Amino acid sequence: MSDFPKAIHLHEEGPREGIQIEKAQLTVDQKVELIDSLAATGLKQIDCVSFVNPKRVPSMADADEVARAIPKRDGVRYTGLWLNQQGLERALELPLDIMGSLRVTASETFSIKNTNKNIEQTFDEQRKWLETYRAHDIELEWGYIMTAFGCTYEGHVPISRVMDMAARIVELAKEYSQPLKGIYLADTVGFAMPRDIEERVGALRERYPDLRVGLHLHDTRGTGMPNVYAALRMGVDQFDSSTAGLGGCPFADHKGAAGNVCTEDIVFMCEEMGISTGVDLDALIETARMAEAMFGHTLPGKVMHAGSLSRFRS
Amino acid sequence: MSDFPKAIHLHEEGPREGIQIEKAQLTVDQKVELIDSLAATGLKQIDCVSFVNPKRVPSMADADEVARAIPKRDGVRYTGLWLNQQGLERALELPLDIMGSLRVTASETFSIKNTNKNIEQTFDEQRKWLETYRAHDIELEWGYIMTAFGCTYEGHVPISRVMDMAARIVELAKEYSQPLKGIYLADTVGFAMPRDIEERVGALRERYPDLRVGLHLHDTRGTGMPNVYAALRMGVDQFDSSTAGLGGCPFADHKGAAGNVCTEDIVFMCEEMGISTGVDLDALIETARMAEAMFGHTLPGKVMHAGSLSRFRS
Repeated sequence: MSDFPKAIHLHEEGPREGIQIEKAQLTVDQKVELIDSLAATGLKQIDCVSFVNPKRVPSMADADEVARAIPKRDGVRYTGLWLNQQGLERALELPLDIMGSLRVTASETFSIKNTNKNIEQTFDEQRKWLETYRAHDIELEWGYIMTAFGCTYEGHVPISRVMDMAARIVELAKEYSQPLKGIYLADTVGFAMPRDIEERVGALRERYPDLRVGLHLHDTRGTGMPNVYAALRMGVDQFDSSTAGLGGCPFADHKGAAGNVCTEDIVFMCEEMGISTGVDLDALIETARMAEAMFGHTLPGKVMHAGSLSRFRS
Repeated sequence: MSDFPKAIHLHEEGPREGIQIEKAQLTVDQKVELIDSLAATGLKQIDCVSFVNPKRVPSMADADEVARAIPKRDGVRYTGLWLNQQGLERALELPLDIMGSLRVTASETFSIKNTNKNIEQTFDEQRKWLETYRAHDIELEWGYIMTAFGCTYEGHVPISRVMDMAARIVELAKEYSQPLKGIYLADTVGFAMPRDIEERVGALRERYPDLRVGLHLHDTRGTGMPNVYAALRMGVDQFDSSTAGLGGCPFADHKGAAGNVCTEDIVFMCEEMGISTGVDLDALIETARMAEAMFGHTLPGKVMHAGSLSRFRS
């Protein structure tokens, strides 16, 4: 049985997660050009910057400047990422679309390495975010569970821990009378298999039939696109993705890393199967090629190199 | 409903299809080293050479020499590819495992470009092959339908044409009292979507319930692995694949091309989902890295760069 969605929603991560890991430093103008080019393709939500320690992520030192320079197109949400209260407050000062979210990590070790907080400290932090959302009249949308399949420090993450994390963020949101609209499972380091997608999405759906499910996937070991397909079969219609497969790349000297699932490859597969994305594929391919030229090395996206099938239909 | 196989059979194409398209010319010793390293991983069938015009494919000019130099391991089939009677006769002179096959192309234009024969001439040619198999007591195994999803010259190939080609090779084999054991659908230029896999494999199964189905897939536009997964769900247990994703590569200067689906990425996905491949994944990753070193540029395989998950289980 399959239950393909009629349309999917993509949250473009290239300018944020993509740029974070690349060695080449883009100028503010280049970043803005990339973001605006993405917005022109029909993508409706673009993660533009992250508010993180510039000593750890130098490419985000100019996040404020980028956020202020983006020309805004109607109907596009320009979001940013924060991992702590300080980052959230910085985001609130800028002309960005604040997406109310909770963000927890299923692996204790990864949580500490990524955010300097263990799981309990992270839940305390989420209370501050919820208070801030309430104070600013920001609607809560997604709860993210990072390393929801596995972690390079702790290995396989059992489904019981993921369901426990889901229960805690659902309860926490209720406590603040700001119910979650959906839960995102993030395969932060590329451990997920298509069967894991089926198992975990299925378990979330069964426990929380009214919540949407989103996926943040990495193509670290070749299972990114099969994971997208397994999710589509179940009707999942919300994905994070990154143009050109940006976001860590085996072709630079950090060989172990690998990017997010590639936006235009997803758009291609969906549109060819009759699933609407709202994106102009050929325009997005041009944007991916522009990103490749900016970074100066081959990026992992596939359809950006082979071209779409539109030229075989005329 | 899914019907995953317990085990799959892989036909390794790296040394043949992979090497054909690479610019770098390997020496006979390097080719033999690659083939033997693949055989040592547990792969049971390896396509080693093709018998084609060396003016069109210079890297296969030493095919005879390579075929004679391969050290043979028990239980491994060392095969070669021919596209005409002359090539078949050349293969018969060499210490190779001759796999009795028929080979037709669903696209008339592609057939002419690839083999200098149109579809009718190809069927005439197949009669010569069948006579030769009979004369040499070679069992007929697979019938290949190339461009079974689409073609860069003719675009989308309708399922009716594929089913017509299947019917003709099944009848032809019967006429020579050498029934086919299975039909391979080849997505020669990367047009197949997972839904096409489901549709075409399903149609073959329904019409020919006693025949096996094999798939030869290319990851030209990011759908190679989702296509493998869609096929696995239907119980397909026979795939051509190529170590390191060799077989045309967007990272060389022939940007439009792209390799076969990557052997070790398939092995990884299958083994992680409990589907046996008989292959030592970590050994195969080492072989893929050796191939990358031989060719001198990054190859498209994923798990070869990220590493398997075995180190997270100790």
